[in-house]
Amino acid sequence: MRLVRARYRGEEAYGILEGEEIRVLQGLPYEGLAFTGQLWPRSAVRLLAPCQPSKIIALGLNYRDHARELHMPLPEEPLIFLKPPSSIIGPEETIVRPPQSKRVDYEAELAVVIGKKGKNIAAEEALDYVLGYTCFNDVTARDLQQKDGQWTRAKGFDTFAPVGPWIETDLDPNNVRVEAYLNGKCRQSSSTQELVFSVPQIISFVSQIMTLMPGDVIATGTPPGIGPLASGDVIEIKIQGIGVLKNTVI
Amino acid sequence: MRLVRARYRGEEAYGILEGEEIRVLQGLPYEGLAFTGQLWPRSAVRLLAPCQPSKIIALGLNYRDHARELHMPLPEEPLIFLKPPSSIIGPEETIVRPPQSKRVDYEAELAVVIGKKGKNIAAEEALDYVLGYTCFNDVTARDLQQKDGQWTRAKGFDTFAPVGPWIETDLDPNNVRVEAYLNGKCRQSSSTQELVFSVPQIISFVSQIMTLMPGDVIATGTPPGIGPLASGDVIEIKIQGIGVLKNTVI
Repeated sequence: MRLVRARYRGEEAYGILEGEEIRVLQGLPYEGLAFTGQLWPRSAVRLLAPCQPSKIIALGLNYRDHARELHMPLPEEPLIFLKPPSSIIGPEETIVRPPQSKRVDYEAELAVVIGKKGKNIAAEEALDYVLGYTCFNDVTARDLQQKDGQWTRAKGFDTFAPVGPWIETDLDPNNVRVEAYLNGKCRQSSSTQELVFSVPQIISFVSQIMTLMPGDVIATGTPPGIGPLASGDVIEIKIQGIGVLKNTVI
Repeated sequence: MRLVRARYRGEEAYGILEGEEIRVLQGLPYEGLAFTGQLWPRSAVRLLAPCQPSKIIALGLNYRDHARELHMPLPEEPLIFLKPPSSIIGPEETIVRPPQSKRVDYEAELAVVIGKKGKNIAAEEALDYVLGYTCFNDVTARDLQQKDGQWTRAKGFDTFAPVGPWIETDLDPNNVRVEAYLNGKCRQSSSTQELVFSVPQIISFVSQIMTLMPGDVIATGTPPGIGPLASGDVIEIKIQGIGVLKNTVI
């Protein structure tokens, strides 16, 4: 099932995308699905970021092939950081390169969207807390990341968290291809089989630290092949079984 | 004026604390104050964290006297990091030391609460975006801070962001005393005159990166004298012109 958030004739709502129609939901999609009865034509809506997280947790180095490329040892535990909710944009929205940075990179990532509140979740039960999965671009000002040491500024600019196009609720996260296409050319291509820490392990780890809330996003790290974005570029994050998140750059 | 958020007989609301009474507000305190007409007795309410931020931005090394103590050069620009909204607790609530850490520290800080949405705010206009000021304890797992490099885990545990007891709207942030009392003994005492970056400079800097939203919190850094918390400790953050934020530790 594909959960979307959409705007149509001035109204915003969550819904289920079925073929060329969106079945509009009452309220939030976390506690059972109630339909308004409205059907919106997909061709006439604008898709918005499919979730409104209270926090976005992301992981550093979490792909074995990426670690090999960098000649770095595999981390012993997940390295987490936060991106602010103000950095979120939806599909087809524009990534804005800020004047403070000379090097802004794309990073293709599989993102988990949390479906119910949880703390100290066991890995064995972690998938029960997942609403679904979506594509995420962990846009990063590489020069500021190196300069600051802390990654908050480098990863926290407005528009630096494209997410979407929808939340796919039926997906096995353990073996899907994660890719980035820059102006149509494949630049990142790996599989979540290369993840150092699996989705259940990550959810469990994060939930030992902070209470996870419905709608919260956990971005699971990026594979090799990251690179810079220039004005006019089109960057697409494509994940097998989900779809394509497309954004332009200015 | 002292803005509070309080719970009384199962109801939660914002209000104005006047003597022994709370004048209850309709909705949020950001866009004009509308009163419900209810008066709650202060002695019978529980004060909650006085804001519900979409993000908490905090600053590293931002006191000259602290930098001198550490023999560190003054930073050229603010170093920012984020704490998740899930880490917030209110006055009188309990700071929980997590099993992952052997050293959890208090850090007394003056916090700014944002009153209206803003981006690219000039320092000269920054105070127009301030709702008021409150006390903040940037609780930190010092050992994990050193281990991880990134500060997110060390500063992101549930209960690691005590805030309150209220938002004082009438305060000159440029010359107030910021203190921490551990079990009644003064451990931190400095003045915001020692700030490397002033409140207007900080607001301007952060707003060049991320859109500030009403209710967002910016913690302005801690003076010298940080130290560990043990089970049973009482930690109080006292700021001149605001009041005292008191929490216990387990």
